[in-house]
Amino acid sequence: MKKILIINTGGTFNKVYNPLTGNLDIEPKGDALKSIAEHWLTDFKIINIIEKDSLDINEEDRELMVRTIKEHREQTIIIVHGTDTMDKTAKYLNFAKLEKKIILTGAMVPYSINPIEATANFASAYGYINAVDKRAVYIAMNGVIKDYKRVIKNKEKGYFEETQNNNP
Amino acid sequence: MKKILIINTGGTFNKVYNPLTGNLDIEPKGDALKSIAEHWLTDFKIINIIEKDSLDINEEDRELMVRTIKEHREQTIIIVHGTDTMDKTAKYLNFAKLEKKIILTGAMVPYSINPIEATANFASAYGYINAVDKRAVYIAMNGVIKDYKRVIKNKEKGYFEETQNNNP
Amino acid sequence: MKKILIINTGGTFNKVYNPLTGNLDIEPKGDALKSIAEHWLTDFKIINIIEKDSLDINEEDRELMVRTIKEHREQTIIIVHGTDTMDKTAKYLNFAKLEKKIILTGAMVPYSINPIEATANFASAYGYINAVDKRAVYIAMNGVIKDYKRVIKNKEKGYFEETQNNNP
Amino acid sequence: MKKILIINTGGTFNKVYNPLTGNLDIEPKGDALKSIAEHWLTDFKIINIIEKDSLDINEEDRELMVRTIKEHREQTIIIVHGTDTMDKTAKYLNFAKLEKKIILTGAMVPYSINPIEATANFASAYGYINAVDKRAVYIAMNGVIKDYKRVIKNKEKGYFEETQNNNP
Repeated sequence: MKKILIINTGGTFNKVYNPLTGNLDIEPKGDALKSIAEHWLTDFKIINIIEKDSLDINEEDRELMVRTIKEHREQTIIIVHGTDTMDKTAKYLNFAKLEKKIILTGAMVPYSINPIEATANFASAYGYINAVDKRAVYIAMNGVIKDYKRVIKNKEKGYFEETQNNNP
Repeated sequence: MKKILIINTGGTFNKVYNPLTGNLDIEPKGDALKSIAEHWLTDFKIINIIEKDSLDINEEDRELMVRTIKEHREQTIIIVHGTDTMDKTAKYLNFAKLEKKIILTGAMVPYSINPIEATANFASAYGYINAVDKRAVYIAMNGVIKDYKRVIKNKEKGYFEETQNNNP
Repeated sequence: MKKILIINTGGTFNKVYNPLTGNLDIEPKGDALKSIAEHWLTDFKIINIIEKDSLDINEEDRELMVRTIKEHREQTIIIVHGTDTMDKTAKYLNFAKLEKKIILTGAMVPYSINPIEATANFASAYGYINAVDKRAVYIAMNGVIKDYKRVIKNKEKGYFEETQNNNP
Repeated sequence: MKKILIINTGGTFNKVYNPLTGNLDIEPKGDALKSIAEHWLTDFKIINIIEKDSLDINEEDRELMVRTIKEHREQTIIIVHGTDTMDKTAKYLNFAKLEKKIILTGAMVPYSINPIEATANFASAYGYINAVDKRAVYIAMNGVIKDYKRVIKNKEKGYFEETQNNNP
């Protein structure tokens, strides 16, 4: 298989319940991805950076993602990201003209609460980016996997869908 | 997204525990795939045929798969199949020259016992077959996704791996 | 078995993840208890009242619990309750001199996130209250099951423990 | 709490899926009980002996249980046991006149496949044996917790129920 780099930036995908506070906190060490790797009998190269809710991700964080992608020789990248600003980060990465195959994914429900959606999103991103030819920025959520311009979050319904209108 | 047809033929992927007998039986109605679809907030066209351990799959069953693929207009097919003879079925389908994109997947552990591996195998197959260009027969197991000739089951270790030697 | 009445008042035990808001909300219909009953191959008489975090439970709510216990003929009662004020409610019920066997239980982790602790707390309360002779108010948490005066929550460590000092 | 000794003898409770053979094997080290203890934030004294399906448990095994109970000073004992001959072992222990509080429990579904029933059975046994006064042999399954003479397995329906007729 192609060497893939996985960049983990936080988001719902990585949240875990904290019994002392009753809150859901972002687990910073990538335990969710490690658990998928272990059960899937596979192995990943994972880098944990940022560890934020995507609403808190700022220009600096996006610049760090660009830098991280440039610094690594892998040509195929999966980014685990919160869902609320996944489209903004995708756009930012597209404008950076990185000339790599990049796919963003995440989850509406934390892996630690119910692993099915998070696992399916991640694995579908993995399958897609392994097969796709064109160097571009993609989003993989809820079985919708396209160039980022064609995928939007439906915030009322709580899932992603295909759009005919390009993201601005 | 492309219209995908999912053909469910049984195998470990679909096994469930029967408390009355203590055995693991193949659930015939595709509950595992329906559960993935529900949690993944997506929808599939699923056909349940055969419902067998792959060791029991015979030439007649493989001919039924060929016929089912021909009878449906979908050009992109995922087959959920037991792991022991997944390679034989792949070869059979390849020789049938169906001129469609076909990917076989399954699980080493039943979805009902632990859903991670089964979900990841299925979703990675889904992602791959959505992106791949060439009409051929593929296998997706444990993160190894290739033309079926390049993937074999390591029976001692209990997972699939890439092979440099073509399947005979 | 003795007829047992289960009074469900909310708390962490009943929380479920809301993907639209990212919050944990109290599920009001007792789905967690119904799920335990179904998997345990048993049946309960459940009344859902109040549906609150225990920090929000007030005198009026406690009076409603007293009234509910009086109005029902069952002599054996399990109350599912949030953990933060479980001791206050126990004391209130004790002062009401209800002359029934009453046991309070709950969970540090929502049943929907990980069912083990919630199930074990509830089932241990069920076992205890079925066997105990003395009409009194008990607490069952984390394997500590005693007259409520002997059980306190250790808020730093996140579990309940036995105390030698009576609750005031 | 009273010191409790847990004697783990195998049975469905402890079975785990073996991906290499496709069989369910009895896990010999008590991982299921350790997992309950960990999630329940509690601690147990566990002894693993025998590790058998209850259909394979013979007189020698039952004699070993008697000896183990006698050798330990704990007066309160939980035995995790397969369901098919739980009644036979209970009768054997009763005839041994051990003068301790002994409760047998187990599961219809392995803890590793679905933890709810196994956890509820075990925790209800724990609660009951902590509260009961009379030194005798009890069974706790599916919410039915009684002197062993009053509990039988309904093999067609797959659960335990109360009987009015004493076990012979």
